[in-house]
Amino acid sequence: MPMNLTRKIIAAHRVDGEMTPGSEVALRIDQTLTQDATGTMAHLQFEAIGVPRVRTELSVSYVDHNTLQMGFRNPDDHRYLRTVAARYGIVFSPAGTGICHQLHLENFARPGRTLIGSDSHTPTAGGVGSLAMGAGGLSVALAMAGEPYVITMPRVVEVHLAGRLGGWATAKDIILHLLGELSVKGGVGKVLEYTGPGVATLTVPERATITNMGAELGATTSIFPSDEQTRDFLRAMGREADFEALAADPGADYDERVEIDLGALEPLVAAPHMPDQRRTVRELAGLKVDQAAIGSCTNSSYADLKTVALMLAGQRIDPGTDLLVSPGSKQVLAMLAAENLVEPVLASGARLLECTCGPCIGMGGSPVSAGVSVRTFNRNFEGRSGTQDAQVYLASPQTAAMCALRGAFSDPATWGQPPAQPEFPARVPSIRHLFVMPPADGAGVEVLRGPNIVALETFDALPASIAATVTLKVGDNITTDHILPAGAQITALRSNIPAISEHVFSRVDAGFVARQREAGCGIIVGGDNYGQGSSREHAALGPRHLGVRAVLVRSLARIHRANLVNFGILPLLFADPADYERVAQGAAVSIPAARLAAGGVLELEVAGAGRVAVRNDLTENELAIIQAGGLLNHVRTRAGA
Amino acid sequence: MPMNLTRKIIAAHRVDGEMTPGSEVALRIDQTLTQDATGTMAHLQFEAIGVPRVRTELSVSYVDHNTLQMGFRNPDDHRYLRTVAARYGIVFSPAGTGICHQLHLENFARPGRTLIGSDSHTPTAGGVGSLAMGAGGLSVALAMAGEPYVITMPRVVEVHLAGRLGGWATAKDIILHLLGELSVKGGVGKVLEYTGPGVATLTVPERATITNMGAELGATTSIFPSDEQTRDFLRAMGREADFEALAADPGADYDERVEIDLGALEPLVAAPHMPDQRRTVRELAGLKVDQAAIGSCTNSSYADLKTVALMLAGQRIDPGTDLLVSPGSKQVLAMLAAENLVEPVLASGARLLECTCGPCIGMGGSPVSAGVSVRTFNRNFEGRSGTQDAQVYLASPQTAAMCALRGAFSDPATWGQPPAQPEFPARVPSIRHLFVMPPADGAGVEVLRGPNIVALETFDALPASIAATVTLKVGDNITTDHILPAGAQITALRSNIPAISEHVFSRVDAGFVARQREAGCGIIVGGDNYGQGSSREHAALGPRHLGVRAVLVRSLARIHRANLVNFGILPLLFADPADYERVAQGAAVSIPAARLAAGGVLELEVAGAGRVAVRNDLTENELAIIQAGGLLNHVRTRAGA
Repeated sequence: MPMNLTRKIIAAHRVDGEMTPGSEVALRIDQTLTQDATGTMAHLQFEAIGVPRVRTELSVSYVDHNTLQMGFRNPDDHRYLRTVAARYGIVFSPAGTGICHQLHLENFARPGRTLIGSDSHTPTAGGVGSLAMGAGGLSVALAMAGEPYVITMPRVVEVHLAGRLGGWATAKDIILHLLGELSVKGGVGKVLEYTGPGVATLTVPERATITNMGAELGATTSIFPSDEQTRDFLRAMGREADFEALAADPGADYDERVEIDLGALEPLVAAPHMPDQRRTVRELAGLKVDQAAIGSCTNSSYADLKTVALMLAGQRIDPGTDLLVSPGSKQVLAMLAAENLVEPVLASGARLLECTCGPCIGMGGSPVSAGVSVRTFNRNFEGRSGTQDAQVYLASPQTAAMCALRGAFSDPATWGQPPAQPEFPARVPSIRHLFVMPPADGAGVEVLRGPNIVALETFDALPASIAATVTLKVGDNITTDHILPAGAQITALRSNIPAISEHVFSRVDAGFVARQREAGCGIIVGGDNYGQGSSREHAALGPRHLGVRAVLVRSLARIHRANLVNFGILPLLFADPADYERVAQGAAVSIPAARLAAGGVLELEVAGAGRVAVRNDLTENELAIIQAGGLLNHVRTRAGA
Repeated sequence: MPMNLTRKIIAAHRVDGEMTPGSEVALRIDQTLTQDATGTMAHLQFEAIGVPRVRTELSVSYVDHNTLQMGFRNPDDHRYLRTVAARYGIVFSPAGTGICHQLHLENFARPGRTLIGSDSHTPTAGGVGSLAMGAGGLSVALAMAGEPYVITMPRVVEVHLAGRLGGWATAKDIILHLLGELSVKGGVGKVLEYTGPGVATLTVPERATITNMGAELGATTSIFPSDEQTRDFLRAMGREADFEALAADPGADYDERVEIDLGALEPLVAAPHMPDQRRTVRELAGLKVDQAAIGSCTNSSYADLKTVALMLAGQRIDPGTDLLVSPGSKQVLAMLAAENLVEPVLASGARLLECTCGPCIGMGGSPVSAGVSVRTFNRNFEGRSGTQDAQVYLASPQTAAMCALRGAFSDPATWGQPPAQPEFPARVPSIRHLFVMPPADGAGVEVLRGPNIVALETFDALPASIAATVTLKVGDNITTDHILPAGAQITALRSNIPAISEHVFSRVDAGFVARQREAGCGIIVGGDNYGQGSSREHAALGPRHLGVRAVLVRSLARIHRANLVNFGILPLLFADPADYERVAQGAAVSIPAARLAAGGVLELEVAGAGRVAVRNDLTENELAIIQAGGLLNHVRTRAGA
């Protein structure tokens, strides 16, 4: 039977499970990547697993998020990551070398390989035909230790591209169009696989822009075939040997199909405050722009920035508009320099920032109050820019540059002739020597920690019976931001569970931490969709550190549920949702944990409410993990056995 | 009688007072500069003065300090500065264009002109023969309004330079040597005027490194003659028309004399934690270096960075050492790019940061915990880097680059042949078009303020009698950091006196603000040397906003005393220092202010202590300022009269 490309790669890496959409399937992982904001915890977990060296083909540790270094915490994190990488056989990419996804695409991503990364935009590598997925830090740590990665077998959507881009339309406009069509939930449980004659018209960096921002569809990942464009790209990167032609079999089946006529696209934006709020640039003409920002893992390639430099050359940006430019990697910046394109950027009035994530993650570059900011990034959530009332539009580099030159949105019909798509020069400067390669034997390397880097504690096993207090009762739709807020100050504590735990539920109930401490053993009661939002595992680790042993809710968000299991917190569900009303904050709850069965029902004794029936939807394996006190204990026990 | 250069310039600008060291002398000011961290308040004060346009030859507003933009406050400040500049005839230099002193030297500083700037390193312009001094924001605002600037007539020190630099010794080593000789207090009340045959061997950027760091001697300023080196520099900058030959008359007298044999110098550092802790690089050989940082207003010129780029070319810095490079201006970076020197810097592993003050003022780039950081900056005070326990050494760019390459200090005897001093290329790219020139008539320009920018309040006049409470009693040597702390979080509030006032004495006594609020009218009691340290006028403005009307101390630091006068706070001194013991915190104090006489003695009624005699050392003019409620009121009244 002819297979699509996604199923081919999954089949080639399957170690367990069925390839039926919705089933669990366990995959061998060839490559991993981490970035520093999630990576310190992932590496602390890897250390806790206790294997002497990574067991992947390749694991790379990038520093690109917390690079400002407002104090000792960021540089201490970088030093820890550098030394732990050397010790365990991991390639290290120092701060300022570039953005993880851009660097991985340029230097390491390979057609047909599986890659997981502790960053949601890991699917960028789908631009060269990798099956590349974002994951929690512990999942990445386990993959580094050689464990398979379990996913829900996705539905595969054929995104059929016809025609070719014309005028000022770009790859960014393809994905902004698709987001408008499918919405930010349109990709959940799916892989988007690109096919059709339009594919051959798109270069690898253009494809990578599309697969990168497939994350905003909620997709498991996105993937392009590996073809002559892929070969050209890898050749330019000095690694044609990594090329392998890969495509769906002719006549392959897909679970769904979407068609896009590239020739019909025009410059688009995502309007505030969601990536699927599609508008045309044309209809916004006249809207004043306070800031334009070009960069991020979505749009910081050589072609993107060369196009921008050519548009800026000889021009002066509007004095009322700030333009920030962050190249995706030192290779990109070195290529611009080699073509004398740095001076024109500087002379236009643009600000040239370091090759990092920077403003995309609110690490600097915030807009003015209530300012309109046009950004080539992938997310425009309210407040993400660092300015709560900013109006952030997502757009292509061309659109952003034109906004900076004119100080406002304008009709693309007035922009003249677009610059030609840049081709790679004959000589592409390599920056591979900047990656710090691990020694063949790292056993003698001392791992250096600062005072903010705290080794992961060992959690105890699940007791036979739990006497807990309801230390907090919350309502529906509690997000991981409610459980453990983001922001530069708290994010700087990501390597330090005891310290970051002081902020658990701090924006919901300032008294929670003290109350939980006093109670010793706690249970959180919540409503529907508890734990929605980001994948940060700190939202499970923090409560666990403070003594939370169970949550009792009406329903759970998928990733947070996985994180609860991974760190040994019982995810209990009201058998009768109406019982939510019967359990009061402060009540003593007795949980006969020894009587728990996977998928079964249990009765709790709740002071003031009597018996309350709770169910669970745990698999046998998940229950075993919780009983062991979490996945790390479980893996260690299994390894010891 | 033959005159030295300093006295010549003072004589040419004197509008009042005597040129006897120690006397007050009022000077006409030709140029002013501000930077953003002090500039928002200076411009708010300028607006409060109420003149329609600046009355200097040239006033420039630079943005170089708060450029990271972690939220709306920094960009709102930038927008305010841009619009207020356009309205009042001020040249505006946007964020990222460069560091104020480097830009001013390249573009605006002129031999024989007076310049004051709201930044202590304003003496950098002494490198082209300007008489350039740091000052408080209100002094700069008044100079912008055409008022003379009053200084204490300095003693003039001849620094006689013999011979020429050899080997790896640089201009930085000249000033580090001088700091070792004279100490950080050695220049107080003095101008350092450079003479002798060694002068002609030093280029203007080298001279500017020396005059810049004369600030660390505590000097009023430092100055070089204007000669053929000056002409060459100005010609390279495209402004030979600004050249004017200037020197001391032959046989001119000086108040003091120091000699330096340039040929005897070797690479030096200032060791932690003071710029006068002179050591040789040689004696530190072997000390591991965690970070090197090149840039700042002291050492970020084209010659400095080209030398560094040539040293780095084809080399890889030590993987255990971070190297941060911040060019002083876009002109410097554009010149490096034009000579293909950007790629070698990137390829060495160095991190290329924006053209701003950056790590020098702790805005990012902090070292690792307890890390050794070798910096080309001008201050190495404990904690200034953002890492409290870092060990910061000040050194030349050459020394810093060599530390990065070797990962440790090493003996300069092992460094080989030093690169030749770079000469300016035939074509120097101009960035003058990036300065936003004010319109001929700015009356129609709307000044844009954000929610954090609060117009300066109008303070009331001194009442005839004051019923105050001692809201705080402190000991000796209270610094402006005690009164109003620094740090990025509080510094972001510099445009907002009500908000920043919440932090007055916060690190001394967390209850102060609430107590002062409750008391309404307060008096601070202190010991000797009250208000030492930085010039920040917020340390007077904040207490005044909260209702502090007087301080009663044993003695006062000079600049803080001036700030108290400027904002209408009575600086009272115990007639008998022993009375300090008699006045308790919380006591009610009655001040018969109407009976105050300049230089006189007054009796206060202090609850629980009876009568306490206090004196003052105010001039008639200063008393009139305080009686008006501060200098702004005083100037407005005089302008109205």
